[in-house]
Parts: sequence; structure tokens; C-alpha cells
Amino acid sequence: MTKIKTIGILTSGGDAPGMNAAIRAVTRAGIYNGFRIKGIYRGYEGLIHDEVQEFTTENVSGIVTRGGTILKTARSKEFPTPEGMQKAYETCVKEEIDALVVIGGNGSLTGARNFGMEFDFPVIGLPGTIDNDLYGTDSTIGYDTTMNTIMECVDRIRDTANSHERIFFVEVMGRDAGFLAQNSAIACGAEAAIVPEESTDVDQLAQFMSRGIRKSKKSCIVIVSESPKCGALYYADRVKKEFPEFDVRVSILGHLQRGGTPSARDRILAATTGVGAIEAIKQGQRNVMVGIRNNEVVYVPFSECIRTDKRFDKRLIKVLDELSI
Amino acid sequence: MTKIKTIGILTSGGDAPGMNAAIRAVTRAGIYNGFRIKGIYRGYEGLIHDEVQEFTTENVSGIVTRGGTILKTARSKEFPTPEGMQKAYETCVKEEIDALVVIGGNGSLTGARNFGMEFDFPVIGLPGTIDNDLYGTDSTIGYDTTMNTIMECVDRIRDTANSHERIFFVEVMGRDAGFLAQNSAIACGAEAAIVPEESTDVDQLAQFMSRGIRKSKKSCIVIVSESPKCGALYYADRVKKEFPEFDVRVSILGHLQRGGTPSARDRILAATTGVGAIEAIKQGQRNVMVGIRNNEVVYVPFSECIRTDKRFDKRLIKVLDELSI
Amino acid sequence: MTKIKTIGILTSGGDAPGMNAAIRAVTRAGIYNGFRIKGIYRGYEGLIHDEVQEFTTENVSGIVTRGGTILKTARSKEFPTPEGMQKAYETCVKEEIDALVVIGGNGSLTGARNFGMEFDFPVIGLPGTIDNDLYGTDSTIGYDTTMNTIMECVDRIRDTANSHERIFFVEVMGRDAGFLAQNSAIACGAEAAIVPEESTDVDQLAQFMSRGIRKSKKSCIVIVSESPKCGALYYADRVKKEFPEFDVRVSILGHLQRGGTPSARDRILAATTGVGAIEAIKQGQRNVMVGIRNNEVVYVPFSECIRTDKRFDKRLIKVLDELSI
Amino acid sequence: MTKIKTIGILTSGGDAPGMNAAIRAVTRAGIYNGFRIKGIYRGYEGLIHDEVQEFTTENVSGIVTRGGTILKTARSKEFPTPEGMQKAYETCVKEEIDALVVIGGNGSLTGARNFGMEFDFPVIGLPGTIDNDLYGTDSTIGYDTTMNTIMECVDRIRDTANSHERIFFVEVMGRDAGFLAQNSAIACGAEAAIVPEESTDVDQLAQFMSRGIRKSKKSCIVIVSESPKCGALYYADRVKKEFPEFDVRVSILGHLQRGGTPSARDRILAATTGVGAIEAIKQGQRNVMVGIRNNEVVYVPFSECIRTDKRFDKRLIKVLDELSI
Repeated sequence: MTKIKTIGILTSGGDAPGMNAAIRAVTRAGIYNGFRIKGIYRGYEGLIHDEVQEFTTENVSGIVTRGGTILKTARSKEFPTPEGMQKAYETCVKEEIDALVVIGGNGSLTGARNFGMEFDFPVIGLPGTIDNDLYGTDSTIGYDTTMNTIMECVDRIRDTANSHERIFFVEVMGRDAGFLAQNSAIACGAEAAIVPEESTDVDQLAQFMSRGIRKSKKSCIVIVSESPKCGALYYADRVKKEFPEFDVRVSILGHLQRGGTPSARDRILAATTGVGAIEAIKQGQRNVMVGIRNNEVVYVPFSECIRTDKRFDKRLIKVLDELSI
Repeated sequence: MTKIKTIGILTSGGDAPGMNAAIRAVTRAGIYNGFRIKGIYRGYEGLIHDEVQEFTTENVSGIVTRGGTILKTARSKEFPTPEGMQKAYETCVKEEIDALVVIGGNGSLTGARNFGMEFDFPVIGLPGTIDNDLYGTDSTIGYDTTMNTIMECVDRIRDTANSHERIFFVEVMGRDAGFLAQNSAIACGAEAAIVPEESTDVDQLAQFMSRGIRKSKKSCIVIVSESPKCGALYYADRVKKEFPEFDVRVSILGHLQRGGTPSARDRILAATTGVGAIEAIKQGQRNVMVGIRNNEVVYVPFSECIRTDKRFDKRLIKVLDELSI
Repeated sequence: MTKIKTIGILTSGGDAPGMNAAIRAVTRAGIYNGFRIKGIYRGYEGLIHDEVQEFTTENVSGIVTRGGTILKTARSKEFPTPEGMQKAYETCVKEEIDALVVIGGNGSLTGARNFGMEFDFPVIGLPGTIDNDLYGTDSTIGYDTTMNTIMECVDRIRDTANSHERIFFVEVMGRDAGFLAQNSAIACGAEAAIVPEESTDVDQLAQFMSRGIRKSKKSCIVIVSESPKCGALYYADRVKKEFPEFDVRVSILGHLQRGGTPSARDRILAATTGVGAIEAIKQGQRNVMVGIRNNEVVYVPFSECIRTDKRFDKRLIKVLDELSI
Repeated sequence: MTKIKTIGILTSGGDAPGMNAAIRAVTRAGIYNGFRIKGIYRGYEGLIHDEVQEFTTENVSGIVTRGGTILKTARSKEFPTPEGMQKAYETCVKEEIDALVVIGGNGSLTGARNFGMEFDFPVIGLPGTIDNDLYGTDSTIGYDTTMNTIMECVDRIRDTANSHERIFFVEVMGRDAGFLAQNSAIACGAEAAIVPEESTDVDQLAQFMSRGIRKSKKSCIVIVSESPKCGALYYADRVKKEFPEFDVRVSILGHLQRGGTPSARDRILAATTGVGAIEAIKQGQRNVMVGIRNNEVVYVPFSECIRTDKRFDKRLIKVLDELSI
């Protein structure tokens, strides 16, 4: 194992608030510890096509407050191929990059694992995704901010729902995981959440809403996890058919969920795991994701954190049920 | 003309942030000036069905910060009919309401005018709509808040648009008026706005965007006024067909534009026009809307303020054009 | 042990964002589980003077979004005395209150413990304080919101500090604990934090700042924990004397840190522990605080959670040091 | 008069949110109209010491959302001297700057006038100050944002004031003008405002507050304009002495009032006046400030806009009086 002198950093996959804070943390902690830092643009695409720039602390000045990622991000079709990986490796050799820090979600860390194994190359991952669907860390960078963004939006929708006494189906992101939907439903005082982890009986839902409305609730808000087949529009249509007397509306929050200045928690998570990534490299770790579990920095093997079935605590279903009476 | 002792207040039509601040102002200024105040729920519907409650200052305590309307709002199908109007009038008689303050937009003030003329009844209007499409006032209650809400959303979308180098078509409210779209486009630094007041040539738009992207702009955002036929989805589809290499996305902001704590400007507008409404009643005015023009309180005859072709300043088109190079 | 039928709820001590969400959760979960709920106003003062009102779900409708506490709060001088406690107990008897839920910080839970022991009365505590200085829970209700409020304020101060190239000492709350100061310093990208847990050498601080400024940092922000003797003003004066060429300013954030709509995380914490409090009563628990540790609901004996030396992780000092180069 | 080819731009005096949006607008509209644009750092100081950089549209990319000023700002002691002015002029000659756009408040525009007159040099001003104390424009860049920032802070303080039933004296900026204090008091539903334009009788104030508290108002908030002698601390002390039974607190909002992302209105004002500045230069105007009056762009001679006694509308005193009963 050669001594690591230069660390490349990239962001990959869907962008998440706090990625910039993580870039800043890795860059500053890296320089503090004597490494050279090189920023790689557009994720693995930029690694393949040598879009690389040396970073000083100046490059990351003032970015802690900004959403998105100054390194930009992309989903690369070429990287998973043997040719793509080979080109990416050649860029590392050419740029004298001895180790990579990859900030991203499930797909990005899978790519990181494959690259690290293929070329026996030190790769450290940071959990950067709004979906919170990575094992081994209590939270992912971006998740808390997105939850707060959804909450602000639903608080606004509640104002108009109350004024018009309407029913709203609000669709939120989360891919295959219901973290955002279930937890934002609790945070907003929503009446129900529809999540991929639980089957939802439309008849029961309609009965429940009907009771609520008759009990003179002012409005009803149901948070729905995005889904190709049965998102908010699907449930709204079903309920409208069943109860034509209800005034039912749909709101799909969309891409605004990805942006915005990161929350305090996401910035602290990014700072702590970013410093942890440099620490990991100093310790000779490789092919691990840096997470926070029980307020401790942990190093989780890639193979463990990208398991695809991380689930929110079932207890939260009880919480929402009891509070939405 | 009998001496006015009791004033009824209602909100009608689409809700707008600042309606509560206006209810508070009318109630407090009314009581300060010796009137009794009665709150009427659900707009003209509540006037028809006698959903009326006497208000003290307690009833409006703490509501200045809240979006929506504590009086709720509705669109009444019965009110425009002779029978509906008659029932509404009978509620006024029964409740000893001598004058009405109506907070709402175009349709609501049209109803107010008709009611006032039909029964020779003193009605004062306040401009309450996010669309800013009422003549005789520089701004309507709710417009400034909604503009800021759109701006915050588009700022967030810009973060992710930049990170992925994408094109976004963002659809905003405004009914038949382009105030929200044109002005929020300027506020957000958007590349273009599509408004009902101007015809938009898709080819020109696509050429413009193509130039921008090639000049290595990081992203492109086009704000589109809502429209039954050619909203954001329509333009996105057209551009996608023309330039399949662009990564085009759509975001429809929807009902969240109606909610949220009102901005300082909307609260001050609500306070000033609310006090102005009571002043108008004391002066014996009737069938006028209270507006602010050039920082002065003005009383605008209903027939004038509900003209349907209020337009934003064409100068703003030049501003956006010059800034989106 | 008599069967518990009626639960009294109160908030005590300094108010914290999320207390209303907790009141809502206890009330709704209580009613869901068949209990009567009585709201007690002004903390222990209201318990002494019988300021009690029966609560239905209506009483807590719409409060999840609001800062402060609808039950109001106070610091009672009478309650710690034997006479005060006796009167409080008599109110419980008179109002048929069989158990108490107390939402508050260190002092309030100490009172809860003493009352519970003195009268063999079931008391359950919820951790409600912005200071995060309670053992046995990863976070307290209000802490996350206040951290985000501080962050927003310091982000604003950074704008003007950068523009004028100034040094700011920003004083934040936290009583004897440095959680807010240390973590918000990391979140804001501050150059240093002064916390009660660590002694601060003014000479070292000044040297550090001097280096930073000379290295052409645009500005310098130091977060200072409130302290009767050596708060932000003290350090600013010392540095000004040492380096008269610096443009040094002070900002004391003050009481705005206590207010505002609670963050998603605080609302979820309030919901989860509120439901947990009712669960605890059903299980026959008493004299415990409900906390969340490692995403699990835990019941912590009062004697344990009110130990006065909870400290933030020393690792965070390293994080700030490495990132403020 | 030589044909103007190159325009220099600077920000001066206290920074204000929206200055960056104005820099962006001048730069982009300038380039659109065929001018070269040069950014001058640190206000008149940078003009004296030749801190000048050519700007392309890239230099102002993404700054519309940011508080502060990327050009930085300073108060120059040298510029008002003949030697200072001469050096500044020599920089213009050396840098081939043919016209200046100055963004700032009273003092900065006074300097602009003097410079323009002394060297017969074309200078255009933009109204950049949070204080709104410039004649000839309905609003200044920064004023609306700061009003909203104050409002958010006071809304938060209201939460805790209500919970503890306290009296707060909140000190806000505004220099010698009461715009911010009077209008934010109305926006926040404050009980009173103390402004430099009106003398305040402490006895009357105390009586008024005493009545309010006894009438069971939940809290009382008084907004106080900053003042060297009688700010919030002064009034709080006086009231405490008079009514020792009141729980009186002080909050001095301080420099956070200067920062933050600009509001929609400030961004639009900056865009419109920025485009207007370039238009003015094309028209051969000089020594005027660009303002907006009644939604029209106006050009106001420097000598007129810097008169020092701009006052808010007295009607607003009546509005606050009637609403604070």
C-alpha cells in the first residue's frame, strides 16, 4: 500500500442539501492533515473524462450555507462498464489521486464499492441522499433538510386546506423508502401517511377520512410516498370516486425538496462525517462508509450499508395513528 | 341612511396570506371606533346560512402571523342568484348587520357590488388575492407573500438544477394575470417567463435556451403562468421534442403558494386597508374597495377595480430580457 | 395504586419550541387511550392556584406548528416549599387528577421528582428545554429548533461580516452547557466557539484570529456561550484591546432563540415522547422522563436525567478545529 | 462629453440585502448594452487604491440570492478629502472607467455627488440602504428584506413573551429614521413603537402598557428605534422602575438585520433600478439616483435624494394606535 498523498472527492447521484458542507469538511480536514485535495466534477462522469481541479480552502469558502453541490453531480451510464471503470482509474493515475471520497446514495456507493474492489483502490463513502435509505447511519446528509422543507410546504398547504376545508394528498420523495413520508406526516400533524412499506386499503382510508371530516375536522392531509403506479393522484382519484362530496386536491412537491440551505443537523452531520472520512484514510480504512450511530462516528463496510431494505421504525405508525384521531 | 352600528366581515374566494391580518385590523379598528363587529364564516355561504359570531379583540388575538383565514372561505353558487342574495340580506337584518366588509378578489368584489346595489347596502371591499389582478391598488393582500414563497421554491429548484445542469419549467399561479410569473422570474434570476399577456414562440424560446446552455450556463429555469391549455407541461414537452439532448423537468408549485405566514408588506397592507375600511364606513362611503396607491389610502369604486384587464408593466419584460443574457 | 383516569399536563421553566407539539401529543394519545386530559396553566403556579381546564382534541388543534406553549409557563417560588407542594397536591385531589405529565428542563423535572416522591404520585417527565442538558435522551424538545434559529441568525451575520471584513462575537444561550454554542459553531462554519466546558485562553484566541485575518479570511465569527461574567462582550473587549486594528462587533441573540415554529425533528421528538408518556402511564411507570436514545423510546429515572454535568462530545472540538483553518 | 465605454460599479457604506442583485443587474444590463463593466472593491477605498477587476456575466452568476455584497463595502475616511478624491479620479483614468454606478445610502450618494461635481464625471446612484431614508424612491434596496427579518425575529419573541407573559423592548436599526420601527411594529402586531420622529412620554407609555396588561393581554412588545441615548435599555429601565411588578426584557436585534437572502421585492427593485442605471447612462444622465416611484422608474438629482428629513407617513401612527387596543 502506497502512502496516500492526494485525495479526490466527488458527489454522485441525486443531489442533497449538505453535500457542499461535506465537500468543505473533507477539503479542509484533508488539508489540515497534510493531504492534497482534488475536486472531481460531475461524479463518475468527471472521473472518466478527467474533469479535475485542485482544491484549496478558498474553493470551499462560503459554501457551507448552500444547497446543491459545487462539484455538480450526474448519473453515469459508462462508469459501471469495465471500460468506464478503467478510464476512471486512469484518471486517478494521471491526476496522482491515491484515494477517493464519494458522497452519494445507494447507487453511488455501490459504484464506489465496485471500483474499490476492482482496482484495490481506497474509497471512502459519505451518506449523501435525502431518502435516508442507507444502513449503518442514523441519518443521511440531506434527509433532515428535506424533512424540514416538506414540513414547511405542508404547513402552508394546511393553511389553505383549513380555509377551504379541503382534503389534500401531498406527494413527497423517498424512492422506495417511506422515511420522508412517515416522519413528515408526524411532523405536520397529517391525518395519514401512505408508504411503500405498508399496504394501504383505500376503503379503510376513505372511511377514516370520512369519520374525520364528519367529526368536523377542518381539513385532512394525507402524505403519499412517490411511486410510479400509486402516487398521490391515484389515491385522490380513488377517494373522489368514493366520496364525490369531498373537495379533494393533489400537490406533488417535486424537485424543490432537493434544494435549500442545509439544516443545522445536516451541516453538523456533513462536518463530522467529512472529518471522519479523512480520519479513516489516515487509519488505512478503505471501502467503508462513514456514518453516525448513537452519536458515534462509525465505519460501515459498503456491502452492509447498501442493503436495500432499510425500514423506518414501525413504532412511528402507532404514533401517527394515535395523534390523528 | 341609518346610522351604522354593527359591521359584518367575511372572506371570500381563494384564500390569501394576510386575510387574517385584515380581519384583525377591521375588528380592532372597528371596536376602537365604537362599532360592533360580527364575523361571518365561509364567505357568502355563511351569510346565506347565518353562520355569524360576534367578535371581540380576543377573537383576533395572535392571528396576524397566520396564513389562511380564520373565517374560512368558499365559493358560493347560491349567492349570485336572487334567492341567495335575498337570504343573505335577511341574515344581515336578523343579525342587525348594518354594513359589510368583504375581503376577496375579483369575483368576491363583483358579488359585493351586486349585493350593495341590490339592497342599497353599504359594502366596503378589501383587495384579498394572491393574483394582484385588481385595479386601483398597487398591490393586493397576499401577492407579496406568494411572490416570496415562489421565490424560495425556485431558489431551491435552482440548487438542484445547477447541480444536475437541468432545464426546469416551473408553473406558478396567477389566473389570467402574469404578475406572479413575470415578477418572480425577475426575482429568481430565471431565464424566461411565459405569461398570458404575451404570446410565446416555442421556437424562439428553444433557440434562446439552446444558446444559453451552449454558453455553459449551469441551468435554465423558465417560469410559466398556470393555464388550462399551455402550462409548464406543454412547454416542457415541446422543448423536449425539439432538443432531446436537454434534461428537462417540470415543477408545478400548486397550493403551497396560497399558505404561509404573511410577509411584512402584506401585513402592513392589511393593517392599513383594514383601518381604511372602518374610516370609509365612518365617512359614509359605500361600494368601494380600499386600496393603496403611491403610499396613499384610496377608495376605488367596485366597478373600476374589477375590470378584468389589469396588466403588469411592459418595462418588466425588458428587465428580464436584459438580465437573462 | 388507584387506576389512573385523569392526567394533568403542564409546561414549566423556560419555554422551548415543540412544547405545544408535546401538549398535543399527550392530549391526543391520552384521549385515544381512554384518559381524560386536564391542562394546567402557568406550570406549578397553576397547579397551586387551580388554573386547570379540561382538554379535548379541539384544544390542541393546529398548535403543532406554533412556538411557545399554549399552557404558558412560569418559574414558581412557592412550589418548592412544603406549603406550595401541599396546595399543588390538593388541586390534584380536587380536580381528580391521578397523574401528571411535566414538560420542562432540569429544574422542572427536579420539582416533578420531589412532588412524585412526597405524595407517592405518578409523574412522567418530557425533556423540554433548548439547552439539551438532560441526561438519558439524545436530544431535548426545542434544542434542534434553537440550533437552526441560531444558524439562520449567524448566516445573516456572516453576510454583513464578509461585506465589511469584520470580526463578530455572537452570544448564544445554553445556560451551563455548551451544546448550542459548539454545535452551532460547526453548523455555521464559525472560526471558534467559547464554551463553559473548556477554558479559553484569550491570547491563543487572538493569535488564532490574527492568523486567520492575515491569511485573508473575509471575516471571523466566534460563537460564545452565555455567561454572567465572560460572555461575548468580555471577549470582544479583550480582543479589541489586543488588536485595535480589528473591527470587532458583538451580537447577543437573546430571547428570539426561544421562539419560532418547531423544526421537523423537534415535532417528531415531541410526538414520540408524548405518545411514550401515555404508554408509560399505562405500564404503571412513574417518576421517569421519556427520552429517545438511539432511535428507541427510553424511560429514565428522574434522579438520573437531572444530573448536572451532561457534556457534548469532545470529538466536536476536533471537528471545529480542523474545519476552521 | 466622451462616449462612455466602461462603467465602474461599487457598493459603499452599510451593506444591505439586495446589493448583490443590483451588482448583477448593472453588470448584465451593462454588458447587454455593449458596455464593459469593472467591479471596484471596498467602495471608495478600492477606488482610491485601485482594487478593480473586470466583470463578465460569470462574475455575477448565482449572486442574486445572496445577502451582503461581493464587492465588499467600507466607509472611507480618505475619500472626502481633496487628495482622496484626486486619487480616486486617477484610478478611473488609469482603469479607463468613464462612468460610475454607486450603490449605497445617504453618505455614499453624498460622496457620489461631490465626486461627480468635482471632476465633471458621470455618476449614477442606486438607493442601497436598509433604513429607507432616501428621498425620491418609494423604497430602498434592503429595506423590505430587513423589515421581514425584524418581523421574523419579533414573531419568535412573541412566542416566548406570550408563554411567560412578559414585556419586551425590541431595538431595531434605522439610524435617524423610524421607518423600520414604525412599520415593523404594525407588521408584528406590536403594542407600541418608539421612533425618533415622535417624542415619547414614558409615563403615557407605562400607563398604556399597564392598561394592556391588566386587560389580560398575554404580552406586550414595544419596538424601539436605535438611538445613542434612549434605546430599548433606557425605556426598559424606566418602565421597570415605574412598574416593578412587570417582567420586562430587552432584545437588541443588532447586525443580523443586515444579512440574509433578499426578499422578492428587494430583488425586483434592484433589478429594475440596475437596468435603469444603464438606461440613464445611455441617455446621458449624470448625478442622479435611480428610484421607483408609483411603479415608475424615476431619476432623482443627488441633491434632492440626500435631504436628511425623509419621514414616514403620520397615518401609520394612527394605524398602530387603533390596532394595539
